[in-house]
Amino acid sequence: MALPSSSQKLRIKESSKGMGYLANASHPPNDLREAISRTSAYLKNDKLQRLVVGRGSSDSSAVQQAKQISSLVLSLEHGSTVRSIMDEAILPLGTRSEEYSLHLPSDGSTATITANSTLGLFRGLTSFEQLWFYLDGQVYTLEAPITIADSPAFPYRGFMLDTSRNFFSVSDLKRTLDAMSWAKINQFHWHSTDSQSFPLSIPGFTEIATKGAYDGTAIYSDKDIEDIVSYAGVRGIDVLVEIDTPGHTAIISESHPEHVACAQATPWADFAGEPPAGQLRMASPATANFTASLLTSTAKLFPSKTFSTGGDEVNINCYQADPETQQILNATGQTMEQALNGFMQTTHQALEGIGKTPVVWEEMVLEHNITLSNETIVMVWISSANAAAVAAKNFRIVHGPSDFFYLDCGAGEWIGADPTGNSWCDPFKTWQKSYTFDPMANISASQSHLVLGGQQLLWTEQSSPTNLDSIVWPRAASSAEVFWTGPTLQDGSPRNVETALPSLTGVPFVRDNAMVEQR
Amino acid sequence: MALPSSSQKLRIKESSKGMGYLANASHPPNDLREAISRTSAYLKNDKLQRLVVGRGSSDSSAVQQAKQISSLVLSLEHGSTVRSIMDEAILPLGTRSEEYSLHLPSDGSTATITANSTLGLFRGLTSFEQLWFYLDGQVYTLEAPITIADSPAFPYRGFMLDTSRNFFSVSDLKRTLDAMSWAKINQFHWHSTDSQSFPLSIPGFTEIATKGAYDGTAIYSDKDIEDIVSYAGVRGIDVLVEIDTPGHTAIISESHPEHVACAQATPWADFAGEPPAGQLRMASPATANFTASLLTSTAKLFPSKTFSTGGDEVNINCYQADPETQQILNATGQTMEQALNGFMQTTHQALEGIGKTPVVWEEMVLEHNITLSNETIVMVWISSANAAAVAAKNFRIVHGPSDFFYLDCGAGEWIGADPTGNSWCDPFKTWQKSYTFDPMANISASQSHLVLGGQQLLWTEQSSPTNLDSIVWPRAASSAEVFWTGPTLQDGSPRNVETALPSLTGVPFVRDNAMVEQR
Repeated sequence: MALPSSSQKLRIKESSKGMGYLANASHPPNDLREAISRTSAYLKNDKLQRLVVGRGSSDSSAVQQAKQISSLVLSLEHGSTVRSIMDEAILPLGTRSEEYSLHLPSDGSTATITANSTLGLFRGLTSFEQLWFYLDGQVYTLEAPITIADSPAFPYRGFMLDTSRNFFSVSDLKRTLDAMSWAKINQFHWHSTDSQSFPLSIPGFTEIATKGAYDGTAIYSDKDIEDIVSYAGVRGIDVLVEIDTPGHTAIISESHPEHVACAQATPWADFAGEPPAGQLRMASPATANFTASLLTSTAKLFPSKTFSTGGDEVNINCYQADPETQQILNATGQTMEQALNGFMQTTHQALEGIGKTPVVWEEMVLEHNITLSNETIVMVWISSANAAAVAAKNFRIVHGPSDFFYLDCGAGEWIGADPTGNSWCDPFKTWQKSYTFDPMANISASQSHLVLGGQQLLWTEQSSPTNLDSIVWPRAASSAEVFWTGPTLQDGSPRNVETALPSLTGVPFVRDNAMVEQR
Repeated sequence: MALPSSSQKLRIKESSKGMGYLANASHPPNDLREAISRTSAYLKNDKLQRLVVGRGSSDSSAVQQAKQISSLVLSLEHGSTVRSIMDEAILPLGTRSEEYSLHLPSDGSTATITANSTLGLFRGLTSFEQLWFYLDGQVYTLEAPITIADSPAFPYRGFMLDTSRNFFSVSDLKRTLDAMSWAKINQFHWHSTDSQSFPLSIPGFTEIATKGAYDGTAIYSDKDIEDIVSYAGVRGIDVLVEIDTPGHTAIISESHPEHVACAQATPWADFAGEPPAGQLRMASPATANFTASLLTSTAKLFPSKTFSTGGDEVNINCYQADPETQQILNATGQTMEQALNGFMQTTHQALEGIGKTPVVWEEMVLEHNITLSNETIVMVWISSANAAAVAAKNFRIVHGPSDFFYLDCGAGEWIGADPTGNSWCDPFKTWQKSYTFDPMANISASQSHLVLGGQQLLWTEQSSPTNLDSIVWPRAASSAEVFWTGPTLQDGSPRNVETALPSLTGVPFVRDNAMVEQR
C-alpha cells in the first residue's frame, strides 16, 4: 500500500467557488447543501498532514507544481427521487441507497460524484474529503487520478453506546456521530436506559428521568433527543433507540415501585448480572400496559422505523422471589415463560401499531419461548457462535458478539474481588480481532439474506466522556469496514489486517472494495 | 469497609482563617505555605461528593448538625531542620523523611499534623485533604475522630512516562504530577527521549531537538524543564530523567549521523525492537565523549541525585552490520562487550563526576558484562522473575516489571500483522494485578535492603494527551499503595483487592498501614 513518491499529485484550488455544487437538482435539500459546506470547511480548515516522517515535506515542490482541481460536481442519476439525506437515512433497512461513483481526474478538470440518492452523494463526499492532505498552505492528494465505484455490503453498520451506566452530554454524542459518519456508520444504536440511570425525559413519563437520572444535568430532554436525531440524520445515520425491558430496569422503581420486582434486592448477584437488581413485573397486565405506553411514547420521538425493546439477561430468580409476580402466576395459571410471552406481545404489538419494527437481544429467541414476528431483528451479543441458531429460526441478524465487538472488554473488572482483575470478556478486542470477523461464518447461502450487518458496542460501566474517544476510536471503524466491504475484497481475496493497517497510519484511506483505477 | 451511617461526622468551618498554619517555624518555606494554600483551596472548591447513591444526601441533616473544626496546626518535631519540601524531596533515596502523624478530633478542637520534615508535613496534608466530602455547601468527614501515624515502606514510589513516542505538553505533565502527589508518588521517572523523537532542548546540544523533535512545538526548553522540575519538587516529587543509551537513539542521526550506527536500517526488525533502527556508536571514543557531554549537560538541568543512562535492548546485529563499529573493534582488538563496557565507563564516570548516581535497565547487569559501581540502581522491566538475579549481584532495585506494571499492555499491537492484534505483554494489567505485586518475592532477608521500591510505566506508542489520564489513572495509584504500604497491612494480614476496592469507589481513602483509632 506504500505509495511511490512519484505518484501523481493534485491540488485543490485555493478558493474554488465551484467546489461541490449539485448539477441536476433545482432545489437541493438543505442537508445536502450543508454537507457540501462541511466538506469544503474540512478541506480548508482541517490541515491534516500525512502521518509520515517529515509530514510529507519532501513532496513540497511536487505539491506546489501539481495541477489544480477547480470544481467538484455532484449529480443525481436521471430519474432519482430528490429526498433529504435524513429522509433517505431512515428508510427501512435494505431499502436505502448508499452507492456512489467518484471520479477525480489528474488534469485539473472537474471531479464528479454521482449517485441515485442524496445519501449516496453524501457517502461519496465523505470519501472525497478523505483523499486530501495539507502541506504549506496547499491541500493535495496522492490519489489522482482515481475512480471509485462503491456500495456497502450490508445495510446495517452500527455503533452502540450505553448512556445509562455513565451519562454523555449532547455534545459528546454529536462528536461521536461525526466520527461515525466519517467511517460511513449508518446506525446509532442508543442503549439509552438501564438499571443504573434513566436519562431520557419521555413525554407522559418525565418522572422516570426526574427520579432516575444521575442528576438534573444528566437528562436528555425531548428537544435534546430531537437535536441528536436530526444531527445524526443529516449525517446519514438512523437512530435505533433501545429501552431495555423487562430486565435492566431497576431504576424505574424510583418513580414506579409498583412496576418493579426485586428492586435493590440483596445480594444483587442472586438477582442481576450487576447491581442494582430490579426488573419490570412482566406478569402484571398493568406493568405491561405501562411499559407499552412508555415504549410507544419514546418511539414517537424517533423517526426510525426500528425500535429495540431489549430483552437480555432476564433473571428468573428475581421473579421467583417476587410475591406479586408469584401471586399473578398462581391466579392466572401461567408459567413464567407464558407471562413473559404475554408481556412481549403487549409491548411489540403496541410498537408495531405505530409502524415500528421491533429489535431484541438474542435471548428472546434462543432462551425464551416468545412468539415473535419474523420481521423482528435479533442482535447477537453473547457469542459469535450464536448467530447460526438465530438464522436457523429465520430471524434477521445484527452481529454484535462480545468475543469480537465489545469495546469495554479487557480493561479489568469493576465488581468482585478477583486478584487478577480480568474482565469476563477478556481479552481487549483489538481492531485487528474485530477486523477478522466473518459475517457469514456458519450461515448457509440460503440464510445469508438474514444478515443485516453488525456493530461494535460500548457498555459504559468503566467509560465516561473522559475516555469515550480513546476507547471507541479507531477501533469502531474496524466493524464499519467489515460491514461496508463484506467478507472479501473486490479481487476475491480475504480482507486482512496487513493491508488494512496503512488505512490507520496515514496512507490515504480508500475503501477496500472500491474499484481503483491503475495508476 | 462500608461505613455505618451513624458514624461521627465533622464539618470544616466555612472561613476558618486558621486552617493549616505552621506552629513552630518563624519562616515556613514558601512551598509549604503554598501547599497549605492548595489544600485550603481543594477543601473549598473541589466539591467532591461521595460516590454513593444520592451522593450522601441522606446524611444531610447529620452533616448540618455536626461539630465544626476551626483549625489545623502543622508542627515540625523539635530539632527538625527546616528545609523546603523540594529540598527534602531531592535528598538521596533512603535519606528522605516522609513520615507524619495526623490527628483529627471529633469535638471541633484543633486538628494537628506533625512530622520531622516539611516533606512529611506535606504527606500529612495530602492525607488530610482526602478525608473530606462536600454536601449542600458543607465540607464534612465521616472519619473523625481519627489518628494516623504513617510512613512509607519503600523510598522509591514512582511513575514512568515516555515523552518520545508521543509528546506531552508541560500542562499534561503538571496535571500528571498533581495526580502523582495525591497518591504520594515521589519519583517521576521521565523517559524523555527515544528513537522516535528527542524533545529535550539541552544547552550545547539544542540541534538534537531542533532536528529530532516531532516539530517546533514538541520541544521542552530549558525553562520548561526548570518549570517541570520545580512543579514536581514542591509536590514532593524527585524527577529522575533518562536519556536512553546506547540503544533507542536513532533520532540523534538527524543531527549527528556520525554518532549513529544502522540509522533507519531496513528491515527494522533485524536491528531494533520497533522502527526506526539506530544506536549510538558505542565503540567510538568520539561518540562516547559526545554522549558523556550530552548526559552531563542534561543532568545539570535536574537537581535530582540520580540520572538514568537507560541501557535496554542494545541490538548487537546493528553493530555487527555497522562498518565504522567493526573497523574500530578490529583496530583496537576489542570485543563488542568490551567496547560497550568502555562506553558505559565513560558516561557513568562523567555523571558520577558531577555527583549523580547512575540508574540503568536490567540488561546492563543481567545480559552484559559491564563494570558498574554497586551504587548503581537497576530497574527491572522484562519480568518480575528477574529481580532476584539483580539482587544476587548486589545492586539496588526498582521494580517495574512488564508482567505487573506496564500500563500500555493489552491494548493491542501496533506493528506487524497478527490477526488477533494482541500485544506482546498481554493481558491488560488491571489495578488488581498490580496491587498483588510482592516487592520481596524471591528476595532473601539479607537482600531486602536492596529493594528501593517500584513504579508503573507508560510507554506511549499508543498513548497521547487524549488518553493519558484514562490509561494512567486510577491504575498507577495501585503500585503507589503497594510501595507505600509494603507487603502487609499493619495487622500483619496481606494486602488484598477486596479491602482495597472501596478506596477506589468513594469510601474515604485512608492508607492501609495507617494506625486508625477505633471508632
